[in-house]
Amino acid sequence: MSNKEIIDLFLNPKSVAIIGASKNLTKGGHRIVDNLVTNNFKGKIYPINPNSEGDLFGLEFKKSVLDIEEEVDLAVFYVPNLKIPSILEECIQKGIKGAIIEASGFEEVGEKGLELRDQILKITDNFSKIRILGPNCMGLTRIDGDSDSKDIKKGGFFTSFAVFHKYKSGNIAIISQSGMLNGGYLMYMMEKYPDLGIRYSCSIGNKMDLSEIEFLEYFLEDPSVNVIAIYLESFKDPRKFIELCRKTREKPNKAIILVKGGLTPQGQKATLSHTGALAENSQLINAIIIQSGVIQAKNFHELFQFARTFSMMYTENKIMPKQGNISLITGSGGAGTIVADITAEYGLKFPIFGDKIYYKLVEIFPEWMPPNRFALVDFWPAMEKAMMNNINPGVLMISVYELLLNDEKIEGILNMMFCSKQFRSFTNYKQVVESINNASKPIFFWLIGEVKEVQRVSRYMADHNIPTFPSLEDMIKNFWILVQDSKNKNYN
Amino acid sequence: MSNKEIIDLFLNPKSVAIIGASKNLTKGGHRIVDNLVTNNFKGKIYPINPNSEGDLFGLEFKKSVLDIEEEVDLAVFYVPNLKIPSILEECIQKGIKGAIIEASGFEEVGEKGLELRDQILKITDNFSKIRILGPNCMGLTRIDGDSDSKDIKKGGFFTSFAVFHKYKSGNIAIISQSGMLNGGYLMYMMEKYPDLGIRYSCSIGNKMDLSEIEFLEYFLEDPSVNVIAIYLESFKDPRKFIELCRKTREKPNKAIILVKGGLTPQGQKATLSHTGALAENSQLINAIIIQSGVIQAKNFHELFQFARTFSMMYTENKIMPKQGNISLITGSGGAGTIVADITAEYGLKFPIFGDKIYYKLVEIFPEWMPPNRFALVDFWPAMEKAMMNNINPGVLMISVYELLLNDEKIEGILNMMFCSKQFRSFTNYKQVVESINNASKPIFFWLIGEVKEVQRVSRYMADHNIPTFPSLEDMIKNFWILVQDSKNKNYN
Repeated sequence: MSNKEIIDLFLNPKSVAIIGASKNLTKGGHRIVDNLVTNNFKGKIYPINPNSEGDLFGLEFKKSVLDIEEEVDLAVFYVPNLKIPSILEECIQKGIKGAIIEASGFEEVGEKGLELRDQILKITDNFSKIRILGPNCMGLTRIDGDSDSKDIKKGGFFTSFAVFHKYKSGNIAIISQSGMLNGGYLMYMMEKYPDLGIRYSCSIGNKMDLSEIEFLEYFLEDPSVNVIAIYLESFKDPRKFIELCRKTREKPNKAIILVKGGLTPQGQKATLSHTGALAENSQLINAIIIQSGVIQAKNFHELFQFARTFSMMYTENKIMPKQGNISLITGSGGAGTIVADITAEYGLKFPIFGDKIYYKLVEIFPEWMPPNRFALVDFWPAMEKAMMNNINPGVLMISVYELLLNDEKIEGILNMMFCSKQFRSFTNYKQVVESINNASKPIFFWLIGEVKEVQRVSRYMADHNIPTFPSLEDMIKNFWILVQDSKNKNYN
Repeated sequence: MSNKEIIDLFLNPKSVAIIGASKNLTKGGHRIVDNLVTNNFKGKIYPINPNSEGDLFGLEFKKSVLDIEEEVDLAVFYVPNLKIPSILEECIQKGIKGAIIEASGFEEVGEKGLELRDQILKITDNFSKIRILGPNCMGLTRIDGDSDSKDIKKGGFFTSFAVFHKYKSGNIAIISQSGMLNGGYLMYMMEKYPDLGIRYSCSIGNKMDLSEIEFLEYFLEDPSVNVIAIYLESFKDPRKFIELCRKTREKPNKAIILVKGGLTPQGQKATLSHTGALAENSQLINAIIIQSGVIQAKNFHELFQFARTFSMMYTENKIMPKQGNISLITGSGGAGTIVADITAEYGLKFPIFGDKIYYKLVEIFPEWMPPNRFALVDFWPAMEKAMMNNINPGVLMISVYELLLNDEKIEGILNMMFCSKQFRSFTNYKQVVESINNASKPIFFWLIGEVKEVQRVSRYMADHNIPTFPSLEDMIKNFWILVQDSKNKNYN
């Protein structure tokens, strides 16, 4: 089987047996079936449990996979580690070609776990008889259509034992050695950020057989994926990883973001008891990251935020910044100062305005407070002048956007916007979005003001793939990674 | 007048004239009066406007302060810069002792502004006839009682032209050269974080007369203030600033947090057009920060988050960590690894468990997955074991808290908690709060799960002064600054 066929079998099976399916809703084996049924999996589902009678969500329990008459593509194991070998033998006998093992208790627990691992190697003849994902993982998710969509595409394939209710199908694929990224954290992030579009999430656990390599290779060729977000505690094959990542240089519409766990001795001690990852030399890790040209994120917050930013930029076909030449529109001078400081630390610069643009700004600003010559526009004095002259400041703001969008030196616009329902006429967010919506430059917002109005504006902007951020530093860092990615892709 | 008397006059006046009060609700002069009235200011309010007739919120307009019969403590100016000198002369004639000038157009605009400044110096006889706050500021806020309180303490004194509706009285005092911190940002933060308790917020603008020094001196002696959060673009008197900050070493219940704007040449260019701050040598700035022993925050997000953390810790009389010895309770091994990495970068350590505690944990954990010997508790396997044996994992978790709280080496507990209404019995957050509520150690949470349940738990914890954080890194950084503050206070 080709790599594509293998991963297709795991991400897109036509039939799946859930081993350890249970009527008890606190059990993972119950929730996996729940997750599949709730989310409209279109293939066949077979709940397997020798101790259960009757049905689960209308699906008849079988004692063993051997009792299934039809062909089965994939088996999902939610049973204690020691029960796995014998059931795996039955799966092989049945001709099942793939197994997801969600139980823990292998490499990460020392000698006993290693014995179990050897047993499985023998049974599977080094994974030639059946391919294995896990153990110690939280399964796979494929999202074909949004949770609130009414059409047949709704849902997809869901084998996490966290049941997902809110999600949006998008262009992000996750590969993770933390189950949380196909479990509680993904659930939280998809509900909290309804604009976060996920295509796949793959919990690879201890990667006894399948690893980041097979999924990465698959996603690099999958046209529905633009962003690959990875959390690893160890590299299965550093050379191959670098080789695959470097393919993004010829694929300008793919970005790879990596969080590496175990960068410090303290973190490595933690990985050992988590996925059994052995300590890797920190110089080696750094070399892998630099040579692969991936975007490095420090934590899960950055991983998901960066992924969302790239995802939105690709969806809108934005021209990615290369030099780091930015502009800022702010209603607060203090925010302007902090942005100027933080952007400087990230190596981003405000270009000097050409005369033509500068003198157009001069007209908008009061005589006693002329605009900066560099692309940091503190809009407040212009707003005061407009109000004194009974001019709608919102209209002026739109003209400032036009000026900045037409300045070729400027690669993107950062914004601090005050959101108030009462003063919506001052900054009509819908007009702002309309005026910037077709721009080829990335445009990011930091919103403050009335909490409800901030949420409303943020949601509206998300619907137009305009990212908003909870802090100035997050906004700047996310622009900076776009520049970083351009630089990485020009490497060599 | 002593410094206390002067600042009392500004923060606690018995009567105030609003110069530039207006019926037009888009004008700042309208909103200042609105803010005072809405928020229950108990002193006298005199709206002044030579062009207005009738009343504003039932308060009769006067043409000039000279038309007021009673004594007036303070004047708030919301008029264009050029109108200020003549009205200021009337204020002096009336015997008003303090003026807040919110208009801009002074040092920050160059020569014309400097002329205006000289004129004011002359009129006020170098501020001996009247003390001035500003110009280019957003006034002062004093909060005596929460916005939703029913008693007479509700509200306080509010001269920002952002009208505040949601706030909580607390132990944080803000001193800021960005009006936003007594305006749109403060409004946003107080509504978004209903647990953020603010006592004062002081926008000091260009600090023509009063500066950070006078307010800092006042807050250091004010028993209602524990946390002083400062944003500065320039230091008025570095020597005095250092001297005052160092007083916190003898005042263990005071913390000072500083964001300095203009740390980079790019930031300094921005400050010049904002508050007219001249570029300061970056070595000098660093020396001031180090010698003063303040906690440095990089941006407004950190400033408010750090302030909230200290505020909660002081309210609960927590014993502040000195060594940086932490523990973690997590339901995710991946989160454990990332916490281990990030804490290592911040110099925080997980102590090794003594035998007594360790063997108690061993009992809770499955045989195939023993606990770590160091204080990173990945609770997941213990939870699986409990469920297999039909034991309520929530009860076990409480016992883990007890063990960690009783370990003398551990100075605080970080937590990753999964929040689910359906599975509340697994982690009963009210039971958790009850079991840790009287602990003398700081205990922080990172919450994930169902968004509504996360909000519910976060709010409940906030009511008990237990801080929750939006990311693992924020949680760790906020623990680290507690350690930093202890170290700073032992300096010399």
